[in-house]
Amino acid sequence: MLAGAQIRALRLRSSYIEISNILRGRSAWPTPRHGHLRTPRLFHTRICLLEQTPRELPSFLETYKKAVDFPPATHDFESFLSQAEPNTEVVLHGYLGHRADLSKKLSFVRLTDPTMQHSLQVIAFAKNDAFDKLKTLNAHSPVAVRGTVQRKKGKGTDPSDIPAQDAWELALQEIYPLNDFPKEIIMTTETVFPPEQRYLQLRSDTELREALRFRARVHNLCKQELEEQCQPPFVEIETPLLFKSTPEGAREFLVPTRRPGLAYALPQSPQQYKQILMASGVPRYFQFARCFRDEDLRADRQPEFTQLDLEMSFATGDDVMRTVERVIRRLWSSLMKDPAPDGPFRKVSYQDVMAKYGSDKPDTRYGMEIIRLEHALPVDLVSKISPLLDPIVEAFKVEGNDNDPAETTKFITQFLDSPAGAPFNNNPDGGPGVFVYNGKQPLCGLQPFGFEVAEQVEDLLEPDHGDLIILQARPRAPFSGGSTPIGDLRRSLHSAAVASGFKPAPSGFDFLWVVDFPLFSPSSDSEPGQGGTAGISSTHHPFTAPKSAAEVDRLLTDPTQAVADHYDLVVNGVELGGGSRRIHNAAVQEFILREILQMPAERLANFAHLVDALRAGCPPHAGLALGFDRLVAVMLGKESVRDVIAFPKTGKGGDDAMVRAPSPITEEALQTYHLRLRE
Amino acid sequence: MLAGAQIRALRLRSSYIEISNILRGRSAWPTPRHGHLRTPRLFHTRICLLEQTPRELPSFLETYKKAVDFPPATHDFESFLSQAEPNTEVVLHGYLGHRADLSKKLSFVRLTDPTMQHSLQVIAFAKNDAFDKLKTLNAHSPVAVRGTVQRKKGKGTDPSDIPAQDAWELALQEIYPLNDFPKEIIMTTETVFPPEQRYLQLRSDTELREALRFRARVHNLCKQELEEQCQPPFVEIETPLLFKSTPEGAREFLVPTRRPGLAYALPQSPQQYKQILMASGVPRYFQFARCFRDEDLRADRQPEFTQLDLEMSFATGDDVMRTVERVIRRLWSSLMKDPAPDGPFRKVSYQDVMAKYGSDKPDTRYGMEIIRLEHALPVDLVSKISPLLDPIVEAFKVEGNDNDPAETTKFITQFLDSPAGAPFNNNPDGGPGVFVYNGKQPLCGLQPFGFEVAEQVEDLLEPDHGDLIILQARPRAPFSGGSTPIGDLRRSLHSAAVASGFKPAPSGFDFLWVVDFPLFSPSSDSEPGQGGTAGISSTHHPFTAPKSAAEVDRLLTDPTQAVADHYDLVVNGVELGGGSRRIHNAAVQEFILREILQMPAERLANFAHLVDALRAGCPPHAGLALGFDRLVAVMLGKESVRDVIAFPKTGKGGDDAMVRAPSPITEEALQTYHLRLRE
Repeated sequence: MLAGAQIRALRLRSSYIEISNILRGRSAWPTPRHGHLRTPRLFHTRICLLEQTPRELPSFLETYKKAVDFPPATHDFESFLSQAEPNTEVVLHGYLGHRADLSKKLSFVRLTDPTMQHSLQVIAFAKNDAFDKLKTLNAHSPVAVRGTVQRKKGKGTDPSDIPAQDAWELALQEIYPLNDFPKEIIMTTETVFPPEQRYLQLRSDTELREALRFRARVHNLCKQELEEQCQPPFVEIETPLLFKSTPEGAREFLVPTRRPGLAYALPQSPQQYKQILMASGVPRYFQFARCFRDEDLRADRQPEFTQLDLEMSFATGDDVMRTVERVIRRLWSSLMKDPAPDGPFRKVSYQDVMAKYGSDKPDTRYGMEIIRLEHALPVDLVSKISPLLDPIVEAFKVEGNDNDPAETTKFITQFLDSPAGAPFNNNPDGGPGVFVYNGKQPLCGLQPFGFEVAEQVEDLLEPDHGDLIILQARPRAPFSGGSTPIGDLRRSLHSAAVASGFKPAPSGFDFLWVVDFPLFSPSSDSEPGQGGTAGISSTHHPFTAPKSAAEVDRLLTDPTQAVADHYDLVVNGVELGGGSRRIHNAAVQEFILREILQMPAERLANFAHLVDALRAGCPPHAGLALGFDRLVAVMLGKESVRDVIAFPKTGKGGDDAMVRAPSPITEEALQTYHLRLRE
Repeated sequence: MLAGAQIRALRLRSSYIEISNILRGRSAWPTPRHGHLRTPRLFHTRICLLEQTPRELPSFLETYKKAVDFPPATHDFESFLSQAEPNTEVVLHGYLGHRADLSKKLSFVRLTDPTMQHSLQVIAFAKNDAFDKLKTLNAHSPVAVRGTVQRKKGKGTDPSDIPAQDAWELALQEIYPLNDFPKEIIMTTETVFPPEQRYLQLRSDTELREALRFRARVHNLCKQELEEQCQPPFVEIETPLLFKSTPEGAREFLVPTRRPGLAYALPQSPQQYKQILMASGVPRYFQFARCFRDEDLRADRQPEFTQLDLEMSFATGDDVMRTVERVIRRLWSSLMKDPAPDGPFRKVSYQDVMAKYGSDKPDTRYGMEIIRLEHALPVDLVSKISPLLDPIVEAFKVEGNDNDPAETTKFITQFLDSPAGAPFNNNPDGGPGVFVYNGKQPLCGLQPFGFEVAEQVEDLLEPDHGDLIILQARPRAPFSGGSTPIGDLRRSLHSAAVASGFKPAPSGFDFLWVVDFPLFSPSSDSEPGQGGTAGISSTHHPFTAPKSAAEVDRLLTDPTQAVADHYDLVVNGVELGGGSRRIHNAAVQEFILREILQMPAERLANFAHLVDALRAGCPPHAGLALGFDRLVAVMLGKESVRDVIAFPKTGKGGDDAMVRAPSPITEEALQTYHLRLRE
């Protein structure tokens, strides 16, 4: 009969076997089978182990022991290449490649260095243990190897022609296995790993790892430009992440505290702290700031993201724009194929980009500019295009391919029949009016316009044989928001044209500042706004200054017409960042919050610290934030910011699929924070 | 009778008066008095304003309009100094100093530049508007000034002797008030502002602003050393802050999501992500990482803090220590009076520092080393010192001042009677035994030891006339935790000695690595540990590797005796940082979590991502985190990290007194996150 301690020892040993089995097989994380073992303390168990199994160390611990004491590398790969001498002994670290067994007595294997940027040939002869050990190791396993340096046989070629990394090889003397790469994981450059295995995505994708290094270089260049090239220099200052809820426009994450009913909020941006720095005698601030928005996850949004945040005192928007242009120029000239175009980036007003491109972040590289047309159109044509009374009708032209109307017709038909076309077809204000200009047809295919209007359309759009003309109606109202239906159509149609090969992909970078945004926009249910009751919200945030003295007057006469000193940096249809001059006067800030936005008292109180800081003689100031993830993605030509973030959230709910976050709140944690779940 | 709109317009105007009053007076943030005005939309209000009050712009808006269009500075201060030419016109920005009115027609005022590092004399003559305008402006107000450069009258001295900033002055031509610094705020270099007015603390305290610039320099030097001087270079990689709850040792903040019952957790450190990077083919990582701990606020702890976090693959603890020494050397040689001492920092084991200094982060600069004494002591003496049976008794000597026993007696009496002495007097294991060595007394004051033991004590401690000998008992048990009672007494006594002038403050920096910590420590209620049921917890975190193959054996035989490959960098009694080699083998990691710590299944599952990453052939790796706030504080000789953080939490509950965070969670937010408050 076994004593209790003996039984426990046996059970413990059987669990090692279980673990080893799992390591050999593909099993997922094992579920524990011996919960009843938890109560006896390990102190007891170890005594019986000492007595019963003094020498029976489980094999995985034996393996691990050997990996603990491994020889240090005598060289990193780069210093090896510059210092290699034949017949010297070196130790190198790295990952094994796939072994090629040339005979029973000779094998080749490449050793990839720890940076995974270089590799070296290793030759193993069946003259020592190392040869046998090598044969037990899987490709991709980390190892330390000791070997003798030898010049690679040149097959008669001139050795100076051989790239350094192919000039040398290592005759294997000893190999130290450091860990085992499981046979079950097939890892080639083609393997697609799921987000749960981000480490394998990173390990197998050179481009992804290179993107992270590139990102660090972008970071450093921005920093250098601001710290070393600007006078006075910018100073990097960290601001708190445990902030408080002060609704500026997006939804904030809360962080409950152990004090009942009290919580911090994670900041949407360091906006208020950086303004307070300006009131604190700090002339120029920047920070790579982590920001948080509890929004639904879109392709280019993450619940947490990084922005290059900066602010300058005694400065106007123009000063900020000049500074940011310097940074962009530095990045492009240092890291990109072509430098950014000379001269200041052009400034286009919000009204103009909305009219011309139907977007406040237009891709301006491919024409397809929008014009107003309703003044020229016969009433009956308008009524065919839209059910709206007196709508605005806009149009743009898509140049055809090879002057072939049939090709154009095929393209537009496919687009409108595709899922991408559905929202445009289903527009309750009328779908797009589509005309293929065709010299072989009566009125070149423009009969619905009638003779006179067709001529006007030709004058305005100057179509060629095979070109496409698109009409779209919208309600008669001032521009608000980020795009119009025809702007969305322009963008969507162009993407489809590029994807289908109907149009070449545009190249280069066309930077512009979109300026003169309205200071306020009508509140809507979809945007949380600032919680005022005036029916309007700040278009960007309530700290944005009016553009000029004349716009200050409008605050009283017609705030909805007031123009903001806000500027967005746009390139190729992407908003890289935005900024503004801020209200630096306490009374004006208070007036905006209280009288214009009509914030209730409790919301006003949320901004007291900022107003108090402005009141203490704060100088004028302006700033900007560049979306850093997006900037890097644009520079690398990546569609998604996920390709430039080491561990992005990937799921629709903002999931980190790898670590499986968010995760269930425990009852204990709820108690700690004086909370309860609602049903 | 007034129409409704007219009433509203009048009310709106009256509220401007209210605001202006507040600006003139000292009133706190005004409570809104016209909540009933919220419902009518501003669109209505503005129409009546247009009709009723077309020209009556409130005065604060008129003032603001003038501040909106201010001339750009022609020079920053430094370029002004290098380019100044007499009789040229310049525009400078800055803050006004206190005006000195020399006569009715002549005033002097200094202009401090936006960086607040330089200033310049401005002379105003009563020949233009600027003179009158200047007289209306308060000191510290931000302004733009236009003036004519003139050489300052040299009073006969050689102009080349005059510092550049005193060589020039400006004859005022125009002044543009940009904001008003309130008269009510008295700001001198002596004014102490409360934490609520951090902006005024920063604005008035040159040293505090300089600390922020110094911090940025430290940041940059660390970065340069890691990126440019190490081969292969370290790469800065950002890791997520919306992480998940995986108990490592401290309490985590939770971030509820809109998915019922699910939350992120803010990371205590990027530990797991950086280890996963090591499994991802990234050889060397670093990051200035924001970390979070929901702990009670102590002088040197903040709920959020910054650490310089780094990790290296194919590396051992020694590799990491060498790297960190490089960084420290670079900092000291670049920024400090004296470079760090030559040669590798010495390594002292946890057992040794605990025995010698009674602390795992000792200040090693002032002697007072502890020795064991109980073997020499008579039983009756021990029983006088402590109620414990067979205790350990330790002792140290404090060298006296001027060989004056009376002075020494006075010092120790004052200490023990002070609040600082209370915890030692009240030690349930016995208070300190205090002896003043006095050549004029029988047995030199050591009678209680008896003749023979007194001689032994003299041999061991070699006291001089006037020295202090302290004895302290503790229970017979292995060292655990960060200090012993006698270690606390040593530290506390030394601080008091320095504060009272009994001892000089020690100078210089004595760096050491504390190594060979126990891998596991007994669990206690005060430390959350890792939630296992084994009665022991990882001393640091459960990813720490055993120090050597021999220590791996102990995992089975006696885990409490196993030594960890953990190392703390300590200087002058401050723990600058700590790190370890990590367990890089999935089976061993799993064994530690499951078998040694006996974690329940749900906790084990929390670490699945890390174990999975290790399983994918992760190389050996080691790393460290330096407490960045503390590092900067130590370099600047600051007692508190608050002096090197722009916006520290100051209250006991982790309050940001300035923005008033944390703040009440609204019912709306609770609903969003499917939460309810507990009663």
